[in-house]
Amino acid sequence: MVEDDGFRALDRQECLALLAEVPVGRVVYTRRALPAVLPVNFSLDEDGSVLLHSSAGSDLVRAIDGAVIAFEADEFHAASRSGWSVVVTGRATVVTDPAEQARLSRTGPVSWMHVRDGVFVRIESEMVTGRELTAVA
Amino acid sequence: MVEDDGFRALDRQECLALLAEVPVGRVVYTRRALPAVLPVNFSLDEDGSVLLHSSAGSDLVRAIDGAVIAFEADEFHAASRSGWSVVVTGRATVVTDPAEQARLSRTGPVSWMHVRDGVFVRIESEMVTGRELTAVA
Repeated sequence: MVEDDGFRALDRQECLALLAEVPVGRVVYTRRALPAVLPVNFSLDEDGSVLLHSSAGSDLVRAIDGAVIAFEADEFHAASRSGWSVVVTGRATVVTDPAEQARLSRTGPVSWMHVRDGVFVRIESEMVTGRELTAVA
Repeated sequence: MVEDDGFRALDRQECLALLAEVPVGRVVYTRRALPAVLPVNFSLDEDGSVLLHSSAGSDLVRAIDGAVIAFEADEFHAASRSGWSVVVTGRATVVTDPAEQARLSRTGPVSWMHVRDGVFVRIESEMVTGRELTAVA
C-alpha cells in the first residue's frame, strides 16, 4: 500500500529481510526521562529477535534491561531520494540462561566496541513496522 | 579523549560539521508512552539548529511540537568497523513566524516525502554529543 506521503508499508517478513542486510541499527530508549538513541551493530536471531552484544556494566545495558524499547535500521540513497526504514518495538532483556549464552557465543553478534564482561541483549520483535520510500516525482 | 569502549568523544564543532555532511537523520521521541523513531531528511540552520520540513497535520509534527526530543545521525563502515554518531537533544517547535517561514522556504530543507501544508520544524541544538569509533584491533 502506498500511503499519502509516498511511503509503502512493509510487512513483517519484508522488514526482517531488510534488517538482515545491514550491520548497524539504533537502540531508542529513555534515559533520565529524555529520549536517547545509540547506534550498535546487531544480528537477527532465528525467531526475528534483535541481538546485541555489550558490556554488562554499560549505561546502555542498565538503561534497557527489562524495558520496552525501539530498535531502528534504515538505508537511504540521497541521489534517488529513496530508501527504507524498519522499527522493532519490544522488551529488551539480558540473556542469562547459560545454554542460550553458549549458543549466542557461537552464533550471536560480536560487538564492534571494546566489551568487558560481555552480555547478549535480546530485543523481542513484538511489533515490527517498516516503510519504503520510492523516488518522489 | 578515547573512552574505555574505543570511542572518542567529539566536541560540538566536530559534531555540527559531521551533521552537515549527511542528508538523513532520525527523530527520536515518545509516542503513546513508547519510544518512537522516524528517519527524515534535514538541514542545519546557521546557529546549528536542525531543520525539518513536514506536513502540518502529520503524526510526527503533532507528537514533537513543543517537546524535547533527540535527533541522531551517523555513518558507519562495516569493513573497517568504524564510524561516528551525533545526537542533538533539544526542544522541537513548528516555525510560525512569517519572516522566518519565508527565509526557510528559500534556504531550508525540502522534504523527500510528499508534503501537504508544509511546515518547518526547528530542533534547538541545546545539547550536542557525538562519538567516533575507530577500528578495534
